[in-house]
Amino acid sequence: MQNRQQPSAMPAHRYQSYQAQFDVPLENRTWPDKVIEHAPRWCAVDLRDGNQALIDPMSSERKMVMFDLLVRMGYKEIEVGFPSASQTDFDFVRKLIEGNHIPDDVTIQVLTQAREHLVQRTYESLRGAKQAIVHLYNSTSTLQREVVFRRDREGIKQIALEGVRMCKRFESLAGDCEIFYEYSPESFTGTELDYALEVANAVVAEFGATPERPVILNLPATVEMATPNVYADTIEYMHRNLERRDSIILSLHPHNDRGTGVAAAELGYLAGADRIEGCLFGNGERTGNVCLVTLGINMFTQGVDPQIDFSNIDEIRNTVEYCNQLQVNERHPWGGDLVYTAFSGSHQDAIKKGFEAMAAKAEAAGVAVDDLEWAVPYLPVDPRDLGRTYEAVIRVNSQSGKGGVAYLLKEHHNLDLPRRLQMEFSQIVQQATDAMGGEATPDAIWQRFEDEYLPVTATEAKWGRLEIKGVRTATEMDGTTTLTVKLRRDDEELTIDSTGNGPIDAFISTLRQRGYEITLHDYVEHTLSASGDAKAAAYVELEVNGERLWGVGIDSDIANASLKAIVSSVNRHMRNQQQSEADAAN
Amino acid sequence: MQNRQQPSAMPAHRYQSYQAQFDVPLENRTWPDKVIEHAPRWCAVDLRDGNQALIDPMSSERKMVMFDLLVRMGYKEIEVGFPSASQTDFDFVRKLIEGNHIPDDVTIQVLTQAREHLVQRTYESLRGAKQAIVHLYNSTSTLQREVVFRRDREGIKQIALEGVRMCKRFESLAGDCEIFYEYSPESFTGTELDYALEVANAVVAEFGATPERPVILNLPATVEMATPNVYADTIEYMHRNLERRDSIILSLHPHNDRGTGVAAAELGYLAGADRIEGCLFGNGERTGNVCLVTLGINMFTQGVDPQIDFSNIDEIRNTVEYCNQLQVNERHPWGGDLVYTAFSGSHQDAIKKGFEAMAAKAEAAGVAVDDLEWAVPYLPVDPRDLGRTYEAVIRVNSQSGKGGVAYLLKEHHNLDLPRRLQMEFSQIVQQATDAMGGEATPDAIWQRFEDEYLPVTATEAKWGRLEIKGVRTATEMDGTTTLTVKLRRDDEELTIDSTGNGPIDAFISTLRQRGYEITLHDYVEHTLSASGDAKAAAYVELEVNGERLWGVGIDSDIANASLKAIVSSVNRHMRNQQQSEADAAN
Repeated sequence: MQNRQQPSAMPAHRYQSYQAQFDVPLENRTWPDKVIEHAPRWCAVDLRDGNQALIDPMSSERKMVMFDLLVRMGYKEIEVGFPSASQTDFDFVRKLIEGNHIPDDVTIQVLTQAREHLVQRTYESLRGAKQAIVHLYNSTSTLQREVVFRRDREGIKQIALEGVRMCKRFESLAGDCEIFYEYSPESFTGTELDYALEVANAVVAEFGATPERPVILNLPATVEMATPNVYADTIEYMHRNLERRDSIILSLHPHNDRGTGVAAAELGYLAGADRIEGCLFGNGERTGNVCLVTLGINMFTQGVDPQIDFSNIDEIRNTVEYCNQLQVNERHPWGGDLVYTAFSGSHQDAIKKGFEAMAAKAEAAGVAVDDLEWAVPYLPVDPRDLGRTYEAVIRVNSQSGKGGVAYLLKEHHNLDLPRRLQMEFSQIVQQATDAMGGEATPDAIWQRFEDEYLPVTATEAKWGRLEIKGVRTATEMDGTTTLTVKLRRDDEELTIDSTGNGPIDAFISTLRQRGYEITLHDYVEHTLSASGDAKAAAYVELEVNGERLWGVGIDSDIANASLKAIVSSVNRHMRNQQQSEADAAN
Repeated sequence: MQNRQQPSAMPAHRYQSYQAQFDVPLENRTWPDKVIEHAPRWCAVDLRDGNQALIDPMSSERKMVMFDLLVRMGYKEIEVGFPSASQTDFDFVRKLIEGNHIPDDVTIQVLTQAREHLVQRTYESLRGAKQAIVHLYNSTSTLQREVVFRRDREGIKQIALEGVRMCKRFESLAGDCEIFYEYSPESFTGTELDYALEVANAVVAEFGATPERPVILNLPATVEMATPNVYADTIEYMHRNLERRDSIILSLHPHNDRGTGVAAAELGYLAGADRIEGCLFGNGERTGNVCLVTLGINMFTQGVDPQIDFSNIDEIRNTVEYCNQLQVNERHPWGGDLVYTAFSGSHQDAIKKGFEAMAAKAEAAGVAVDDLEWAVPYLPVDPRDLGRTYEAVIRVNSQSGKGGVAYLLKEHHNLDLPRRLQMEFSQIVQQATDAMGGEATPDAIWQRFEDEYLPVTATEAKWGRLEIKGVRTATEMDGTTTLTVKLRRDDEELTIDSTGNGPIDAFISTLRQRGYEITLHDYVEHTLSASGDAKAAAYVELEVNGERLWGVGIDSDIANASLKAIVSSVNRHMRNQQQSEADAAN
């Protein structure tokens, strides 16, 4: 099994690994042995980092919808804008404050660069708020120092310290608003770690942070530059080496350039962080900020309360789509349209059995299913815990097997098909989807089931040579049943009397006398318990003139359902025969 | 800074952490110290795992388009279907073989369960192929053993071993096709590790794997059940404890339920795997398989040749969208519409400076920019290496600053605005986007620029009181310039002669005499080098009657461009004044 891959012509020589550019002087890392046991402090930055990356940034109205959603979900720290950089943002902060939209236990956060007129305007925007976080940032990466700011390490550090002093100087402009601070060495992931540490220590000291009045130190993966374990290593390095660690709330701000933002957040959190900034459904510059929905529900499915309410995931998604004017992808974890859907037959079968096992277990234990630990194959969460139904769990396409079809008939019509009938019918469905492509919806499956097995009630469309018009039975105490069936055969109506040790036996005898060679192989019936009208379904597997096939009957009388099932089977045989004869004639 | 988060009402008690359910007996893990240095063996499963999860599975024609794409990109192992489970899949495998669509160095792979009629039909599908991988699987997780198969550990292992024996028994049905084997303990992530190891060892031995004829052992994260470091730990555990490790190609098959599929693949690969299975753009059951595009380009941006050709990412994306009938999300790493776009002003500014620094560096070194190491802030890859243009890099919305606007004018119109003019004009653009919402396209920005600074050429729409209709200059050797300007002022036409130590000076003197108090603050000009018609642009910053503002002139004669710039500035002043007067009158 030789590896036949060839070099590509891609210019990989233009790029260097993170490790070739930066040192991570961390020894004896501890984070891989840890497990997430409680929710971090969350900060939702949808209205700032998310908003600034939209083709059509939110209007004031859309911003308010987003803010209300975040508050309702339980976020207590919400970055609401960059008020000194955009009039819309400034106005929105004023609107939040003047309209009393900020609950007492929610702290708004505003971003600013370390430039005097910006800092000044930032505080002006905050007047009248109860409390706020002023989030100061400057870029510290080697690349940005060189090509953007053209300053050395010391010069860039001074920008940060200048910023801190400016903040303190203008703080009074915010009036009675209680001010907390956050500092981000922006482009942290492109910064030498010893230098990031130096800047962070200096800033934290300049702020005069104390355990009682800590500063938020936010370490952004402004651009993801390595595998997520490396980000975790850098966080653990900072966590372990920061001076005044007890006066710092260590915060993460992962972006998703390499598609590993969620992992970076989780591993970074294990590495010692206290707080995570992100956006719902991962909005944000380029590939987005880390997705707060994924992070929160990931924790939930590990038995950790995210302290955020995701119990109506569809409402959250719809609101986010409205605010961002961007669609959430079908495969987005926990919230996408297809993420609880199994199309594969074996998956469907396993899911069905998982549901049944849970129901049986609950019954045996005398508890509600919802009180049991969730355990269904291929479904890492109970969709109902997120406000979704089971509707979308089983969908049927040409790749699906019997499980899905059977599940849908059970869910939508209370029919519990015997296994061999499942196989027979799913092949019929599969032939149709193979031929026509696309998905077989529950409605389409039901229509095909009716066409195949059930008598059509509309007179103009009836099929099948035989139809039961009426039944009378009389049973002797010796077990003999006398059966009188009024039967339509094509256009003629017959009344037939027969006897047997039960109505099925009697009816089969009758048909035998009329020239149908019939053997009964299987018979199953059940009531349609969940339906209001107390009907019953009967399934028979017959051999009719050498052809083995199932029939289905549904009736409020179980005996009649059985007879209908036999008629269904015989009719199907006759139809198949006509078809073969027609095919042979052509 | 108290944490004000509250418990949610989410029923987290229904879930348990992975660690509460499973042991990972790995000591002294080594993977976090490793770095990816070469591409893994790739296996693309778009036509199987991807296809089975589509609402509308691929037609034979769409399958062929996907197969051709995968071959063209350089994939050498391609899972093409589950031929025993679907007629469409069977027919497609036959079509590939009978139509000679499989290059000699490409090995197709087909999936089968360990059931006799399925195994048999699988080999029948392969007749005539040069070589193929038969991929046998059965589910081994605790949950599936209990609720789906109702067998104990030994019973489930026997299913696998039965499967191996069946495979060998029916191998000859494939004729001359050289058969290789892959085995997946499906739902590996939900399987006790010691048991997974036991099954894997038994299967590998039963296949009689040797270093010369190894078996692919594929360890699927059928459902992601923990943070990705845990998956890596389980892979390292298997890697280090497998018997006959040298006779095994260790393969990963991560899904993305927790949004960490890419991380799981990368960390699992570091942990000792040789091979990765996935789909382009992460198609596949539920949240999808791991995305092969993300993994490949992640490696590329670390200087590792992915051995796959991603040089036309848009064609790849369009083809995948066509085949899957699913859209790739705007923020999908490396391939989404918005992933190279910076809307934020400071990002745009940094990107612009990054491009400039690279150009300067290339010029200084006398090499092409493409030969330099890529280093532009906020762009972890050169979009052109993936066949994208810089077109989408800078887009302007109400959150953008001067950088983006300036970049677009430069890119589309070769105009290199002076910094203070950038600030003036970007505020004009921002007011418009703030007021109207949405994105300011390059066209819209240009229109606004023309409206604001340039003379309207269409007679019916002309604005501004002044317009230069003609210019003559005569320069003495003492440096005195005599300027004759034919000027339209409203509807009257004037011819003005004046002198000065240059045409600008002379023209300003003239205007002073006509009652405009003008001081020149700044003057910048450049040729529009990249445009064919050798025009020049002039920018002047004037104070006109106390108002400071810029003017722009474009002309094939640089002197005329300067005069036009002055007129532009004066006209803008007059317009502003009229506006103020109108506002005052209302």
